[in-house]
Amino acid sequence: MSHDFGPAVGLSCRECGARYPLGPSFACLECFGPLEAAYEFGNVTRADIESGPANIWRYRSLLPVPADVATKPNMNPGWTKLVKAGNLGQALGIKSLYVKDDSGNPTHSFKDRVVAIAVEAARNFGFHTLSCSSTGNLAGAVTAAAARAGLDACVFIPANLEAAKIAMARVFGGKLIGIDGTYDEVNRFCSELIGDPLGDKWGFVNVNLRPYYAEGSKTLAYEIAEQLGWRLPEQIIIPIASGSQLTKIDKGFKELVALGLVEDTPYKVFGAQAAGCSPVSTAFKAGHDVVQPVKPDTIAKSLAIGNPADGPYVLDIARRTGGAVEDVTDPEIVAAIKLLASTEGIFAETAGGVTVGVLKKLAESGRLDPEAETVVLNTGDGLKTLDAITGDDAKPTAVIRPSLDAFRAAV
Amino acid sequence: MSHDFGPAVGLSCRECGARYPLGPSFACLECFGPLEAAYEFGNVTRADIESGPANIWRYRSLLPVPADVATKPNMNPGWTKLVKAGNLGQALGIKSLYVKDDSGNPTHSFKDRVVAIAVEAARNFGFHTLSCSSTGNLAGAVTAAAARAGLDACVFIPANLEAAKIAMARVFGGKLIGIDGTYDEVNRFCSELIGDPLGDKWGFVNVNLRPYYAEGSKTLAYEIAEQLGWRLPEQIIIPIASGSQLTKIDKGFKELVALGLVEDTPYKVFGAQAAGCSPVSTAFKAGHDVVQPVKPDTIAKSLAIGNPADGPYVLDIARRTGGAVEDVTDPEIVAAIKLLASTEGIFAETAGGVTVGVLKKLAESGRLDPEAETVVLNTGDGLKTLDAITGDDAKPTAVIRPSLDAFRAAV
Repeated sequence: MSHDFGPAVGLSCRECGARYPLGPSFACLECFGPLEAAYEFGNVTRADIESGPANIWRYRSLLPVPADVATKPNMNPGWTKLVKAGNLGQALGIKSLYVKDDSGNPTHSFKDRVVAIAVEAARNFGFHTLSCSSTGNLAGAVTAAAARAGLDACVFIPANLEAAKIAMARVFGGKLIGIDGTYDEVNRFCSELIGDPLGDKWGFVNVNLRPYYAEGSKTLAYEIAEQLGWRLPEQIIIPIASGSQLTKIDKGFKELVALGLVEDTPYKVFGAQAAGCSPVSTAFKAGHDVVQPVKPDTIAKSLAIGNPADGPYVLDIARRTGGAVEDVTDPEIVAAIKLLASTEGIFAETAGGVTVGVLKKLAESGRLDPEAETVVLNTGDGLKTLDAITGDDAKPTAVIRPSLDAFRAAV
Repeated sequence: MSHDFGPAVGLSCRECGARYPLGPSFACLECFGPLEAAYEFGNVTRADIESGPANIWRYRSLLPVPADVATKPNMNPGWTKLVKAGNLGQALGIKSLYVKDDSGNPTHSFKDRVVAIAVEAARNFGFHTLSCSSTGNLAGAVTAAAARAGLDACVFIPANLEAAKIAMARVFGGKLIGIDGTYDEVNRFCSELIGDPLGDKWGFVNVNLRPYYAEGSKTLAYEIAEQLGWRLPEQIIIPIASGSQLTKIDKGFKELVALGLVEDTPYKVFGAQAAGCSPVSTAFKAGHDVVQPVKPDTIAKSLAIGNPADGPYVLDIARRTGGAVEDVTDPEIVAAIKLLASTEGIFAETAGGVTVGVLKKLAESGRLDPEAETVVLNTGDGLKTLDAITGDDAKPTAVIRPSLDAFRAAV
C-alpha cells in the first residue's frame, strides 16, 4: 500500500536521529526515543498559504497530509481568532497582548487540530477504528472526527471526568470506555491494547499515530505568526499537559524562519501548569533536567498528566529562549477564567485559566517584558469545565418578579 | 450628535412604510408596526466582500455599521462553517445537504451576529449599558460583547434556564437578573423598563436597538450564498423563535439578487418549531394568517417564544416561496441531535435538533426535493443544552478496570 503524507518523507527519532519509513510507529527501535515526522519541504510562499482555506489545511504543504486533504470529510479545524486583548492587557500592564482562542474549533478545543492530522494518517494506513486515551477534550474531538470521516471510534477516559466532556464524547456515537484510574493508567492501558489482536487496525491518535497527530499543534504557531502579519510574537504563554503542544509550537516557529516566511526574531516561550500537576514547573524552578512524575490533583483536568512525555524538551525550550515554566493554584485558575471573561468576553476552560493565571503571575512579578508583543493561548472552552464556576458565580445576580419596583429593590 | 450607520439611511415601518430618522426607536408612531433599517447601497462587488475579514464585517457595506467597524473591539462573529453533510444527506436521502453551523461563533450561538450590530448602534447612540431579554443564548452573547466593547451589561432571563446558560451569562461580568416568569413576561418587563428613567441610556439589543440588531441575521444569508460559490440554496430550513431570523435571511437573499451578487434563482424557505411551542406551525397548517400565542413547554428553550413577533411574516415567506412550517416533539428533537452528531460530528443545541428533526420529517414525508441543494441551520451549541442528553446517553458505554481482560468482557 502506498502512502501519501505530502511533504513528510519519513519518521526520525527525536533522541538519536535514526530514520524510519512512514508507518504507524512511535518509538525508536534503537533508543526508544519518540519518533516525529521528517519533511522535505518544497518552495512554500505566503501567497500560497493566504490563498488556502480558512482552516489548518492552508498549511497543508507544511503538514504530513496529502495535497488533496481539504477535499475529504474532515472537521477542518483551525484558523481560530487571534483576539487583540486590549482590556486584559490594560488590566495586567501589558502593552500589546493577544489571546489565541482555540475554543472556536469545531469541538471547542485545540485537540481538533491534532486529530484532523491523525484522521488522515488513519486513512493512509487503512485503519477502521479511531481511538485515544483522553482527559476529555480529545475523546470528543476523536469521536466527532470519526463520525465525520466515517470511521468507527472507541475512546478511553478516566471515569471521573467532567459530565459535559463525557456527554460530548458520547453523543457522536462510537464507544466511550471509562477507566477506573488516572489518565496515566488509561494511557498505559492503551499501549497494552495496541500490542493485542483486539487493537489491530486501530489508530490510537496519541499513541501509534502520535508522530502525525502531534504535528497538528504546529498550526498554532503558523496561525499566530500569519495573524500577527507574518512575524513571531516576542513572548508566548502555552499550557503544558504532555508538553507536546509547546514543543511543536517552537518547531513551527523555527520552520517558518527556516522557510523564510518570517524574520528570525527572538521569542520567549513560557510554559503554564496547574499547581496540582506541576512536574515541569517544579523541575524548571529546581534547575533540573529530569521531570519527576506526580499524581495530579487539580481542576484543570485537561492538563492533568502527571508524567509528561515531552517534559524535558519543554525545559530545554523554556531555558533556550529565555522563558520560564510557572504554575498557579486552583483558586488562581478560577480567578483567571473570570478575569479573561470579564475583560475580553472569552469563556475559557480551566486550561485557559492556567495560562491566563500564569500570564498574570509572570506580569506581576516582572518576568514579562510589558513592552513586548505577547500571545497567551486559550486551548479550550469554559462550557466543558463549568464545575469550576460555582456558588454565587453560577447564579443570577438576583431573581425578581417582573416589576420595576422589584428591579429597583434588587439593584 | 451625528451617527454613522454606513449604508443605512433611515428606519422604515415594515407595515405602512413610514420613514423615520436613524434613532433608538422600534415601533411606528402611526401604525405601531415594527421599524427596520432602510439602506442606500453603493456598488458592492464580490471581490470587495471576498477581500474582507473572515467574519461578518466582510459584509459591512450591507449592514447598518460604519465603514471602520472592524477596527473597534467587537466579538467579530460569523464566517462560520458551511459543512457539506454527506453522511446526514445519505441517511435522509438528500443528495446535496449542508449544515450552516453557527455553534462556531464566539459564544457558540448565532446571537453573536445580531449583538455585534447592536454594539455598534449602542456606540452610535452613546449608550453606556447593554441589555436584553433572553432565553439564554442572547444573555451570554450580550454580556460577552459588552465586556469586549467596554460597556456595562444588565440582562434579563427567565429564572428557570439551563444552568450552563446561566453560568455562561454570569461569567462575563455585568448583572444577570432572573425573572420569575416566561420569556414573554421578561420581554414585557424590558419594554416597561425602557420607558422608565432607570433604563435611560440603556441599549436593549432586542427592543430599542432591534432595527439594527435584527439586521445581523442577514449575514447568515450572505455567508450561505457566498460559501455555496455565490448562489442561493434551493431549500433552507430555519428555526423559528420570534421569526426574525427567518425573515432576515429571506431579506438577505433578496438583497443579494437586487445587487446582482447572485442569480435570481428560486428558493423554498422552511420554518422549524418545537411541538411544545409551535404557534407559527399551527397557523401554517390551519391556513391562518394570524398567529395565536401559546404558553411554551419544550426542551428547546431558545425557541420558546409563545408570541412570536414576526410570525405573520414567516407565514408569508413560507407560502410565497413554496416552503412550509413544521414542528417536532421533544423526543424527536433529542433523536435529531444524536443523528446530526453521529453522522457529522456536530453537537447541536436543542434548536439544532428542531431544524434537523424538521428536515428529517419533511424528507420522509416527501415535502423536500431530494435532488435540490438544501441547507439546514444549526444556531447553537449542544454544550449549552446538555440537559437534553440524559440517562445512558450521558454515561460511558462501560466503566472498567485498566486491563485487557476487563475490556474484552465489556465489548
